[in-house]
Amino acid sequence: MSEALRERVAAANAALAAHGLAQASFGNVSEVDREAGVVAIKPSGIPCDSVRPEDVAVVSLETGELLDGLKPSSDTPTHLELYRAWESLGGVAHTHSRFATSWAQAKRPIPCLGTTHADHVDGPVPVTRDLDDDECAGEYERLTGAVIVEALDGRDPLDVPACLVASHGAFTWGVSAAQAVEHAAALEEIAALAFNTVLLEAAAEPVSPALLRRHFARKHGPTAYYGQR
Amino acid sequence: MSEALRERVAAANAALAAHGLAQASFGNVSEVDREAGVVAIKPSGIPCDSVRPEDVAVVSLETGELLDGLKPSSDTPTHLELYRAWESLGGVAHTHSRFATSWAQAKRPIPCLGTTHADHVDGPVPVTRDLDDDECAGEYERLTGAVIVEALDGRDPLDVPACLVASHGAFTWGVSAAQAVEHAAALEEIAALAFNTVLLEAAAEPVSPALLRRHFARKHGPTAYYGQR
Amino acid sequence: MSEALRERVAAANAALAAHGLAQASFGNVSEVDREAGVVAIKPSGIPCDSVRPEDVAVVSLETGELLDGLKPSSDTPTHLELYRAWESLGGVAHTHSRFATSWAQAKRPIPCLGTTHADHVDGPVPVTRDLDDDECAGEYERLTGAVIVEALDGRDPLDVPACLVASHGAFTWGVSAAQAVEHAAALEEIAALAFNTVLLEAAAEPVSPALLRRHFARKHGPTAYYGQR
Amino acid sequence: MSEALRERVAAANAALAAHGLAQASFGNVSEVDREAGVVAIKPSGIPCDSVRPEDVAVVSLETGELLDGLKPSSDTPTHLELYRAWESLGGVAHTHSRFATSWAQAKRPIPCLGTTHADHVDGPVPVTRDLDDDECAGEYERLTGAVIVEALDGRDPLDVPACLVASHGAFTWGVSAAQAVEHAAALEEIAALAFNTVLLEAAAEPVSPALLRRHFARKHGPTAYYGQR
Repeated sequence: MSEALRERVAAANAALAAHGLAQASFGNVSEVDREAGVVAIKPSGIPCDSVRPEDVAVVSLETGELLDGLKPSSDTPTHLELYRAWESLGGVAHTHSRFATSWAQAKRPIPCLGTTHADHVDGPVPVTRDLDDDECAGEYERLTGAVIVEALDGRDPLDVPACLVASHGAFTWGVSAAQAVEHAAALEEIAALAFNTVLLEAAAEPVSPALLRRHFARKHGPTAYYGQR
Repeated sequence: MSEALRERVAAANAALAAHGLAQASFGNVSEVDREAGVVAIKPSGIPCDSVRPEDVAVVSLETGELLDGLKPSSDTPTHLELYRAWESLGGVAHTHSRFATSWAQAKRPIPCLGTTHADHVDGPVPVTRDLDDDECAGEYERLTGAVIVEALDGRDPLDVPACLVASHGAFTWGVSAAQAVEHAAALEEIAALAFNTVLLEAAAEPVSPALLRRHFARKHGPTAYYGQR
Repeated sequence: MSEALRERVAAANAALAAHGLAQASFGNVSEVDREAGVVAIKPSGIPCDSVRPEDVAVVSLETGELLDGLKPSSDTPTHLELYRAWESLGGVAHTHSRFATSWAQAKRPIPCLGTTHADHVDGPVPVTRDLDDDECAGEYERLTGAVIVEALDGRDPLDVPACLVASHGAFTWGVSAAQAVEHAAALEEIAALAFNTVLLEAAAEPVSPALLRRHFARKHGPTAYYGQR
Repeated sequence: MSEALRERVAAANAALAAHGLAQASFGNVSEVDREAGVVAIKPSGIPCDSVRPEDVAVVSLETGELLDGLKPSSDTPTHLELYRAWESLGGVAHTHSRFATSWAQAKRPIPCLGTTHADHVDGPVPVTRDLDDDECAGEYERLTGAVIVEALDGRDPLDVPACLVASHGAFTWGVSAAQAVEHAAALEEIAALAFNTVLLEAAAEPVSPALLRRHFARKHGPTAYYGQR
């Protein structure tokens, strides 16, 4: 079943590790096949850099039922919640990468302090609210997805392809598993730059809307002029 | 004598170095064989990444007497004290890893600020009290073990597999030498995340007991559902 | 056309990546051939470490028109503005390197806090003013070059081979593309040292004019005595 | 002349680079042969990792005159001043390593905050006074050596094998070029740990004299019991 999908997911998990984003064995990447109604995701407890395509877990997008491969990541219900909420999503990545997680633990959104950020994310990177005690004890992983959707607050997920989960880590996404990983790498760099910036200048101000617009649009808008298109 | 034990200890010391946890030639790992009543440990002054199995020191768990191999690490009495205090321990690691040691030098316990921490340690990572002048001049290494046991304050060492030694570095442990090293790597990541977090937000609050419980239990409790078990 | 020029530019872009200065795929390097009236620069959207000489974009120094190769970097108008303003420039590099960009995002010039800095830059590394909304919406990239020239404030660009662009990143230059890359690497180290220094000592003072003079002159002045000349 | 000496010096310079201590091409190592009355040192402007034994500069310990090899490092008069002041020295290393230089730029001595430090340096790492304008304009490099000797303030240089030069970088030494490099690596780790520690806890206190004594003595005193001796 869906050999190419499982190969892309294995490769994307390996890429997450190659970027140094999967510390302490954390992290996982998935991709959805909406026509087939399935999501392929890293198996639970397997390091990101040693996922074999045949071991990738394939689950039902609708029910979460395991259809093929090993037992899926315990974070699978979070991924499913995001795919269900946002039709435009093709891939999702989860990391505990160093600087993104530091912002998540500080429960602070990452302000857009420069063009590196503006090139990738249209405005601040949001942070979720805390889950309350019942939520932690209940459908914890699915509700983690729900508070991410809540934190986006109606913004377009492809314009804001990243969210911090309070006291936890980062989720990023894109049109494919590979793009979700690229966004995870960009988020980590954005988070590191912002960390250094606020240490230098606690009152650092976000960039102007005009500068944000210019940079995001030159890469992503209908008038984009970056790259070889 | 106990060839497999010495090979595991040599490999665990090499793993400590491979994780980048043995800066400036510091660090050592041991494993106990309780049936044989012996502890195998890195020889003194040999870099972690060049310990040959035949050079591993084997000492008596009861008396500390050298039974085989080269002269043991000068920290051997600390290891022995831990094995004697806690029957459940199989392996012990000692590091001066960068971020864990920074917290140890600041004499601050590491609060549980996120799920990376909660996945590995059930609550804060404790820090020992200072040794007084007589203790420093006396059975210094054995007493270092004693203040670690004191700092755990009755908590289960397998739920709290790490302790900071004030002004010194870190000790971690587990059911084997290999697991002690895994915990040393996790501690360093936890310490780095917490360092960044308090720099961003000096008043960062620990996670709720409910979130701590959920994460620690999903990996370690009787209801654990992480991994391919 | 100008095969050697394109090879030097491809190699300089590769060197930028090899120095770890081209995070998140950002960064580009160019070199001018003033006799031929052309500038060779990295093509847009191609990672720095995989630019083939035949893909290097060659544009007119005067008009910016593409003469050969792939579509040029979107930052090309910035490079051209610098070459037109300063006759002595042979190469220009642009990075979002971690520490230099952190200072740029904090909108703080880098004070000369030590001899590592004094060996490379004659005084503080300036930071540009913000571009206003009209400038962001208009000839943004060319005006980025203009505010760099404005920030140098008449200082000799070969004595001050680096400038921070507020909320953006760094531009460096030199007599060749290779030297522009060397200056980008030196700037990143200078920025990292200054970052650490002000964290240790918020009120750290710049070096004395006499020390700055001694170090800059021993490498660069007419009385230079560094190296094998 | 003294082939073995030149080979040791070339190897020690390569080791400095391999330790990551020779950023931005800075750094140099020398060794003295007191019987022959010569000092072998890195040639000026040659990167540490590409010094060939035949290119190592050999100068007179007494006069500084070049006897063999390429033009010596511009820091040679500093090295000579140290060898002349301290008979016990066999090797000297100079670096601009990241954390040591940050403390030097902050003009703060590094307090002994833990046992990593106490294992290598008997008390705080001193920092020199500033050179005044006449000193900067005059025999700058020789006087840099003189203020290092002044900063040691009569302490035994083999007990305090490192000194920060204000606004500049670090000098370390030992009984050989190889040991000077080991001390440079230890100093960088000590400086990094102390940097993190004071960021966590601005008022961090030095270790007790009893702890300092125990650690320094277990490695270095007449009662040393560390290693395979």
